[in-house]
Amino acid sequence: MINKTTLDFRVYLVLDPDLTAQFGMVETAVAAAQAGAGLIQLRAPNWKKRACYDCAIALKKALRPFHIPLIVDDHVDVALAAQADGVHVGQKDLPIEVVRQLVGPDMIVGLSINNLAQLESMNPHLVDYIGVGPVFATTTKKDADAPIGVSGLSNIAQLSPVPVVGIGGINEERTVEIARTVADGIAVISAICGQVDPGKATRNLLAAWQKGRLS
Amino acid sequence: MINKTTLDFRVYLVLDPDLTAQFGMVETAVAAAQAGAGLIQLRAPNWKKRACYDCAIALKKALRPFHIPLIVDDHVDVALAAQADGVHVGQKDLPIEVVRQLVGPDMIVGLSINNLAQLESMNPHLVDYIGVGPVFATTTKKDADAPIGVSGLSNIAQLSPVPVVGIGGINEERTVEIARTVADGIAVISAICGQVDPGKATRNLLAAWQKGRLS
Repeated sequence: MINKTTLDFRVYLVLDPDLTAQFGMVETAVAAAQAGAGLIQLRAPNWKKRACYDCAIALKKALRPFHIPLIVDDHVDVALAAQADGVHVGQKDLPIEVVRQLVGPDMIVGLSINNLAQLESMNPHLVDYIGVGPVFATTTKKDADAPIGVSGLSNIAQLSPVPVVGIGGINEERTVEIARTVADGIAVISAICGQVDPGKATRNLLAAWQKGRLS
Repeated sequence: MINKTTLDFRVYLVLDPDLTAQFGMVETAVAAAQAGAGLIQLRAPNWKKRACYDCAIALKKALRPFHIPLIVDDHVDVALAAQADGVHVGQKDLPIEVVRQLVGPDMIVGLSINNLAQLESMNPHLVDYIGVGPVFATTTKKDADAPIGVSGLSNIAQLSPVPVVGIGGINEERTVEIARTVADGIAVISAICGQVDPGKATRNLLAAWQKGRLS
């Protein structure tokens, strides 16, 4: 069982089936885990559930030695079936009250937040962290909202009662900027999945985070 | 609670968001229920989960007076959250063993079957009925297998340990043919959803079923 109180949100990898085509989902996840990613999310909106379930099982097994949580995007049923450590939902997915009822108190539940109104309407007792964004324009999420910028992220992070990860169009340089806010970390897809060396990309993002945080 | 042993599989309506655009999902379901449909399925593969959940809740409420089961396609989490009466999965959805474990013994579980090999590999103790097809070519399911014909349906129905509904391209005339096999009913989308009068279409399908069965 993952300890929810000691999560490391600095670099949160969201796996993408298209961008990981070169190395594969599991290999990319393991490379990032070895390099210090603190959470791994399986997000495959175009996959059928069987493929998603099979991948979740494979990821769960491969990530066991690293003791970092596997989060499943959207599909609460897949998260439960694969005994993932958590589930992440957006504003158009199942309501957070329903999700928490289905998964129980121990599973990690993350929620996507785009603006202050969404933060204010959220019951913080049901949510373990929020993914806030898109901070910058993103190409990997087709139906993304307009970018909120680092200032938009910073505003939400200052008011959030739960840990905050910025998401959307984040690269090394932008990680330094975000680390200067009170946000707890960054979530990335292409900054790791799309890279020639996913492990090295993860280390560089962690270094960029440390640089921003300490400056 | 729906009694699983007394289900009426003769005419099983599968709701489609595009084809029900004229009357709406709930109105179409109620018209079919009033006219004698025995089961109603919510199938919206292109919808986000929130829309699917909201629709399931609305259908559950609207169908309560008719005492007929609401089945949710694919999404076990939505079925559980909306307290639907059952869930229907295909060969590329969550494995039936996993589905049964998530929903417990009382919920109705249906499985799509295309050939004898799939029937043979199925654990009949976990499944309450099978949807067999496509019997004829269909336009409403984009990734459908090749049609198996009435003879293909008949072969599978003769060997099935659980009730069988034929699905795929079924209209009134073809319902008469299928009712002459040992199958238990038909599942239709466009033969009800796409019609000017969904209630009348349902009555006509039931009459066609009776005609075939008695002949």
